[in-house]
Amino acid sequence: MTQEKDKGMVITDDRNSPDEVYFDLSNYLAERKALVETALDRSLPVKYPERIYEAMRYSLLAGGKRLRPILCLATCEMTGGTQDMAMPTACALEMVHTMSLVHDDLPAMDNDDYRRGKLTNHKVYGDDVAILAGDGLLAYAFEHIAVETHNVPASQLLQVVARLGRAVGAAGLVGGQVVDLESEGKSDITLETLHFIHTHKTAALLEASVVCGAILAGASLEDQDRLSRYAQNIGLAFQIVDDILDITESQEVLGKTAGKDLKAQKATYPSLWGLEESKRQAAQLIEAAQAELMPFGTLARPLNAIAEFIIRRHY
Amino acid sequence: MTQEKDKGMVITDDRNSPDEVYFDLSNYLAERKALVETALDRSLPVKYPERIYEAMRYSLLAGGKRLRPILCLATCEMTGGTQDMAMPTACALEMVHTMSLVHDDLPAMDNDDYRRGKLTNHKVYGDDVAILAGDGLLAYAFEHIAVETHNVPASQLLQVVARLGRAVGAAGLVGGQVVDLESEGKSDITLETLHFIHTHKTAALLEASVVCGAILAGASLEDQDRLSRYAQNIGLAFQIVDDILDITESQEVLGKTAGKDLKAQKATYPSLWGLEESKRQAAQLIEAAQAELMPFGTLARPLNAIAEFIIRRHY
Repeated sequence: MTQEKDKGMVITDDRNSPDEVYFDLSNYLAERKALVETALDRSLPVKYPERIYEAMRYSLLAGGKRLRPILCLATCEMTGGTQDMAMPTACALEMVHTMSLVHDDLPAMDNDDYRRGKLTNHKVYGDDVAILAGDGLLAYAFEHIAVETHNVPASQLLQVVARLGRAVGAAGLVGGQVVDLESEGKSDITLETLHFIHTHKTAALLEASVVCGAILAGASLEDQDRLSRYAQNIGLAFQIVDDILDITESQEVLGKTAGKDLKAQKATYPSLWGLEESKRQAAQLIEAAQAELMPFGTLARPLNAIAEFIIRRHY
Repeated sequence: MTQEKDKGMVITDDRNSPDEVYFDLSNYLAERKALVETALDRSLPVKYPERIYEAMRYSLLAGGKRLRPILCLATCEMTGGTQDMAMPTACALEMVHTMSLVHDDLPAMDNDDYRRGKLTNHKVYGDDVAILAGDGLLAYAFEHIAVETHNVPASQLLQVVARLGRAVGAAGLVGGQVVDLESEGKSDITLETLHFIHTHKTAALLEASVVCGAILAGASLEDQDRLSRYAQNIGLAFQIVDDILDITESQEVLGKTAGKDLKAQKATYPSLWGLEESKRQAAQLIEAAQAELMPFGTLARPLNAIAEFIIRRHY
């Protein structure tokens, strides 16, 4: 999408300072993505009835940045845990995210035929199986965490279950979706409503990804709160950038129907703020996110670079 | 539905024996149902965005026998636990069950307009909100268990999360649904396939209800296994009786479109076995279920009577 994403990134504030740190984010993301892909593939073997497992796997293994799992792994490691401790939760986060995409694409919802350049789940398996595949992924996410996580105290795992449940339900993703649906076609959406939609539709699960990583590692409540704010900020920035991309990128690049928001008369940040102000706000959010990482020092390099990656992906 | 259900039941094998025990099941069920209704009502207060909470509550509080929560409470008490320990899980089981009904009724699935004499969720709130209400209930079920259960070791709660997840997902309810969908309109469904559908669509969640109650109380694995078999047997019997009722009861009594299975050319136990053999098989399953309760003695009175209630509701 951009030239920059293939280059390493300088993540200190002063890029001319002699102690600046070079962090190869592109390599880091590729490596982690590969690990996550392998774990996802193993997490859900095909059994009878094959059709439902195939439908679940079709969307779960359809690619994507795997940002949520990577954030979970990175945060767990940064706060003293291991990748192994976090991997089942990382996979569960992607299952939940995939469920939301599969249901979101249904004719009764956004009615999308393509996602990441592939036919959407219901176009391949039918609406009925797509609904069930989403339900199956959501239920399995919780089972997977409970059964597959090792070397983490049960009380911490229960906190992960609770955070994930909240992030997906009416207090999170589902709540954001409903307000989004109610807002469609309305020209008078307030900034407050738009914020609500995106802090719930996008930021809630990113926040859960980061905070669950920290919980698994046994991080302090103070650190969890810092990381929660980091995630909320990058979550909102992520959505602003998505809105910008919807306008500026072509269908070919995104692999989905671009300009769709405009056509659907959806309120977006650029429609409220204009393009330039949207970019400025996104940059400010990323800065605020990075400020929360200060106490973690160089350990925060991956999370720092990921924050920067979010803002850079359209420049 | 029947005269018998309003009378107390004699649950010893020899009904003329002097030490026979009179157990007022009707009263027991009414009492427990009232407790569950109160807990369900409290479990999900309406917040912004109201529409999704109202949609979730509409179906969650639409009545029904509350058999799953009652089984969970009864098993927890029978194996040494308390109602308080089991109530959040009991509510979660009903949330999950409600999710499956809401999604099942969708036009993309069974396309039902009425459920328990009321308009189905999507007829009131629209297909999009009904899908999201189901997702919200499913996610909230796990959150509710993790956050609201007290005085149960976290490791046991994690087992409950795992069992509930498995009972709902592709290895349970969702898997049964998919095979059910695939079997529709086919005239050559084998008994094996029909069994698969119902052990997954119905029995899996009843089994989870019972076994989770036992896990919460800290029951031994041997007792959990006994209770698992009890539940699988009553689950299958329950479905056979449902199939029989679909033929013999009128729409007025059931509050749903009766004879629908026949019209949809769905394979049912009566269509494979005939009515009389279906009744005989159901009775045999109930007997086998009750045999599993022997070691629990008089403590098993509620579970014993519930098993009998399932078979009696159409005689």
